Amino acid sequence: MGDESGEVRWLTDAEMLVWRSYIVSTLMLRQRLHRELAERQDVSLTDYEVLVCLSAAEGGAMRMSELATMLGSTKSRLSHQVARMEAAGYVKRVPLADDRRGVAAELTEQGAALLRRSAPTHVEGVRAHFVDLLTEEEQQIMGRAFSRILTHLSELAD
Amino acid sequence: MGDESGEVRWLTDAEMLVWRSYIVSTLMLRQRLHRELAERQDVSLTDYEVLVCLSAAEGGAMRMSELATMLGSTKSRLSHQVARMEAAGYVKRVPLADDRRGVAAELTEQGAALLRRSAPTHVEGVRAHFVDLLTEEEQQIMGRAFSRILTHLSELAD
Repeated sequence: MGDESGEVRWLTDAEMLVWRSYIVSTLMLRQRLHRELAERQDVSLTDYEVLVCLSAAEGGAMRMSELATMLGSTKSRLSHQVARMEAAGYVKRVPLADDRRGVAAELTEQGAALLRRSAPTHVEGVRAHFVDLLTEEEQQIMGRAFSRILTHLSELAD
Repeated sequence: MGDESGEVRWLTDAEMLVWRSYIVSTLMLRQRLHRELAERQDVSLTDYEVLVCLSAAEGGAMRMSELATMLGSTKSRLSHQVARMEAAGYVKRVPLADDRRGVAAELTEQGAALLRRSAPTHVEGVRAHFVDLLTEEEQQIMGRAFSRILTHLSELAD
């Protein structure tokens, strides 16, 4: 992959600036959103994100491998997380009708209630620390840019 | 904090689009960069990020609490991570001269060597999956926007 070629295309100062500000602010943002959810609603950001994905999926259920891709997680890490969430009553694992080895995670009524209860805290944080700090033009441009990145990464994952 | 007021300012469709594309592509991007580093250089993305921060700091050392803020980590999580990295020889913990309870993490020569060896893999991934997918205009606008978010979050953390 060119790692050994000695011709590394290092980032320019301008590229470094956008990369560093993006990566550091994202790490700090996730930490902040996590703390607000944990302190006020007793739910972690990563568990909240599982609930959001399932809630948006058809029938409130999603194949585990698909969920792992969407959450940037691995099958094994997600499997532990979903087992924990199942024990707490927020999701349940169900076999897939059309795939003997496949398993889906399904939102329970209790999980849906946790999501409804926690959503205002999360949306308030997303506004205060991200959306409301951006102009409409910045939102449009970033929406386009990140959609492009998402398409690129989804194609790699196929 | 307004959670109970019943007046939640939900995201509009346009705001939801930028938020979802940002958050999902970021999770997938981190997973991808992690896999490339782990498979080719046998280092995790989070350990790599510790090495980068220390390498950029004055004297190759940084106060643990400052490092935790920059990495969006908690003191306890970072403490475990640095203990692991110290056992592997990549960093060492040193007391702070001006603060009896303070501890800093310092890059070792072995840690600096790991960073030099791994950097080409990381930069190649950052280019292929982020920087090279953006126009110069998008880079400028995103650099400005994320610097603003970073300033906001840094002020909250003070």
